[in-house]
Amino acid sequence: MENKFDFGMIGLGVMGRNLLYNMADHGFSVIGLDLDKEKADALETGATKGTQVKGTTDTQDFIKQLATPRKITLLVPAGKPVDAVVNSLLPYLDKGDIIIDGGNSHYTDTLRRVKDLEEKGFHFMGMGVSGGEKGARFGPSIMPGGDKEAYNHIKPLLEAVSAKVNGEPCTAYMGKDAAGHYVKMVHNGIEYAIMQTLSEVYDLLKTGQDYSNEDLHKLFKNWNEGRLQSFLVEITRDIFATKDTESNNYLVDMILDKAGAKGTGKWTSQDAMDTGVSIPTIDVSVSMRTISAYKNERLAAAKIYQPVVEKILTDKDEFAKQLEDTLFLTMIICYAQGLALLVKASEELSMEIPLHDVVKIWRGGCIIRSTLLEDFYKAYNNNPKLANILLDESISKLVKPCIASMRAVVSQATKSGIAVAAIQCSLAYLESYTSAKMPTNLIQAQRDDFGSHTYQRIDKEGIFHTEWETHEN
Amino acid sequence: MENKFDFGMIGLGVMGRNLLYNMADHGFSVIGLDLDKEKADALETGATKGTQVKGTTDTQDFIKQLATPRKITLLVPAGKPVDAVVNSLLPYLDKGDIIIDGGNSHYTDTLRRVKDLEEKGFHFMGMGVSGGEKGARFGPSIMPGGDKEAYNHIKPLLEAVSAKVNGEPCTAYMGKDAAGHYVKMVHNGIEYAIMQTLSEVYDLLKTGQDYSNEDLHKLFKNWNEGRLQSFLVEITRDIFATKDTESNNYLVDMILDKAGAKGTGKWTSQDAMDTGVSIPTIDVSVSMRTISAYKNERLAAAKIYQPVVEKILTDKDEFAKQLEDTLFLTMIICYAQGLALLVKASEELSMEIPLHDVVKIWRGGCIIRSTLLEDFYKAYNNNPKLANILLDESISKLVKPCIASMRAVVSQATKSGIAVAAIQCSLAYLESYTSAKMPTNLIQAQRDDFGSHTYQRIDKEGIFHTEWETHEN
Repeated sequence: MENKFDFGMIGLGVMGRNLLYNMADHGFSVIGLDLDKEKADALETGATKGTQVKGTTDTQDFIKQLATPRKITLLVPAGKPVDAVVNSLLPYLDKGDIIIDGGNSHYTDTLRRVKDLEEKGFHFMGMGVSGGEKGARFGPSIMPGGDKEAYNHIKPLLEAVSAKVNGEPCTAYMGKDAAGHYVKMVHNGIEYAIMQTLSEVYDLLKTGQDYSNEDLHKLFKNWNEGRLQSFLVEITRDIFATKDTESNNYLVDMILDKAGAKGTGKWTSQDAMDTGVSIPTIDVSVSMRTISAYKNERLAAAKIYQPVVEKILTDKDEFAKQLEDTLFLTMIICYAQGLALLVKASEELSMEIPLHDVVKIWRGGCIIRSTLLEDFYKAYNNNPKLANILLDESISKLVKPCIASMRAVVSQATKSGIAVAAIQCSLAYLESYTSAKMPTNLIQAQRDDFGSHTYQRIDKEGIFHTEWETHEN
Repeated sequence: MENKFDFGMIGLGVMGRNLLYNMADHGFSVIGLDLDKEKADALETGATKGTQVKGTTDTQDFIKQLATPRKITLLVPAGKPVDAVVNSLLPYLDKGDIIIDGGNSHYTDTLRRVKDLEEKGFHFMGMGVSGGEKGARFGPSIMPGGDKEAYNHIKPLLEAVSAKVNGEPCTAYMGKDAAGHYVKMVHNGIEYAIMQTLSEVYDLLKTGQDYSNEDLHKLFKNWNEGRLQSFLVEITRDIFATKDTESNNYLVDMILDKAGAKGTGKWTSQDAMDTGVSIPTIDVSVSMRTISAYKNERLAAAKIYQPVVEKILTDKDEFAKQLEDTLFLTMIICYAQGLALLVKASEELSMEIPLHDVVKIWRGGCIIRSTLLEDFYKAYNNNPKLANILLDESISKLVKPCIASMRAVVSQATKSGIAVAAIQCSLAYLESYTSAKMPTNLIQAQRDDFGSHTYQRIDKEGIFHTEWETHEN
């Protein structure tokens, strides 16, 4: 009888196909299933010579050829497709087989599936995979969570195929239940916020100071060689140097300013509101993508308001330095918000997410990888229970010297009429989070006045209510 | 046989009790049910002499004494209590009876209940009631939606008890299905945003320019006599004049700066994200309430960062004028975001919400009533299909002269270190909404680069993808 395959993949799109090739390159024999015959057939053709890769369109054949306990990863669109695929497998599986959802499923769906499949005798894991096409092919960051027994079965494989930083794999057990998908969701929320920030920096330079794409490329190249070194700064550098093949322009200038979204940033914001964690930079990044999509309304509004952007007259080198500080600080705050959400959500949902492992495996392979994560890794190693990275002494030493620049940039943007929603929200977050006294006492007074919602006092414990009266004079 | 009661109320808390007295004062005979004997007994005692008011703790007795079709309003906490009460009634009701949920239920719960009870032969309506205790007692704004046949039964009652503006009742049919609760949810989202803005204005004046509570009272009194006239500005005026009965201080200074929330603001933000509408000022207002609750973390952070607030040196009268402009403009933008959400949600959920009636009935009785709503009412009467009030010519004439002041205030706050999240988000919203070209083309380039998410072009139709390359030099 022929040898059975080590590992199976369902869904041979960009991510699934490349992750499978990556596994094969590391010596695992793999089989891929896709109902699209073209994709199934193309699988073997694209594999490295000498690796054991097979494609099929037949579910029963796929199942039969896998070694038990079967280890099957799904990389299919989130939502109903995941349930449909899982249900199509169940009749052919044996108890103890392992199904891993490697897509961007909402963590509440994952919670439901874990429970449902556990009752039926199968292992189900939610696993975040980040790194895009190239990451999947040559080393992504992999965020598995849930069933620990199942995790131990796939640990060697994940460690082999993941990215490496200082020889250490960019994958680790992210915690119980849906922790893998929760961590990936927050990863994407942070990604939204950093991308929004980069677009604002771009706008300030291009619109405010007439930077050409060549200038932008040089500046981002320069930045990427310092403390801003990160995947997103790196690809932004590359983007500014990319020519359009159809016109004489740079490609970025030919792209329409309507942003799309797959929903994970939105989920992060929605869940943070339920969890009671403040992540305004991520929220506003979701919101700015949304408003960008209303292009026709924006054009109508632009006609009515005819906004004029004033040039930024600050010395170019000085402004670039201020922006470097601002981008660095905003990035810290984007991570701070996301990580604070992970801390609180881990408690609320009893996921036991190891924050130091989260930042450790984000250092390589994933979209939000950056040298900053080394600093966070040290902070969590010092104190694994850190509620917010801004409370770490070393991080505060990175933050403080950048605040004045951030203020200068926001003031300048405000004067010029260039929207810097993410940078502003980061500043407001920093100011509020480090404030011993917010003006929310007024909000509590208002709530008690019109709705008898009660308030607390600064001088004694308890819950109080006042019959507020009118004072017209 | 004795006469039956016109109207029944379940839940005799602050809102339920006062709304019932209001009905009785208008000549309706009313009966109230509460399982708390004290509340049921106290009901008759508090009623106006000569009105027909009765309290009971007995569900069967309550039902028996109501004229058919029975008209029963629930004012109980949102969530499970509503289902529990409805289920406790069903065995005793007759087909055609009308149940009205007057609490702050999530509209998706209302949708479910409408469907469920329709199948069982009963009418169910979701109805928003705003105005707090005094509003309920002397004239609230009432937002009923759903079953039109049932609405016609209660219309005379609602019109009698609601607030009046220019002799017109502040109640109207808000649309199909859960429209009443949807409109109330958005009302509350706008309320959050205006309250957050007022707290920021307070902070700028108190912390930035050392205004005393007496000064604040005078300024808000002054403002409330002009175009800022509104319930929230009015009670803020009153709050600054209210002394603490236990200390020699003003009460507002004795209130702890941790804001509470009942969840409707959060729901507005969460739903706007699903509906695809940008409401960043409401989002950040939810977020700032949340961060205010982390008092211990804030105290720890304040120790590490020791933020210093610089005084605002602008001439006091000039700054007050700038702030008046800023508050006026921010209020317009808070409404603009909420109303834009109503337009889109009405389409998406086929609720047929009449926007001109929404702003009409918000002019009196409710927490967000303001003279500004007269301007919006005119705008919607001109164009009932207005996608965003900022697109109305007359509104634009209110907006434009305030923009320079808003920029001055944000710049000043930024320099001083006073967080103005809602004002900043309103500015960023205005700038982005009126921008013919946002920098989101960069975000689309990034998404296509790392995730092959494709992009659109400015020069031709279609969906495009590029194999982006590295450009290190």
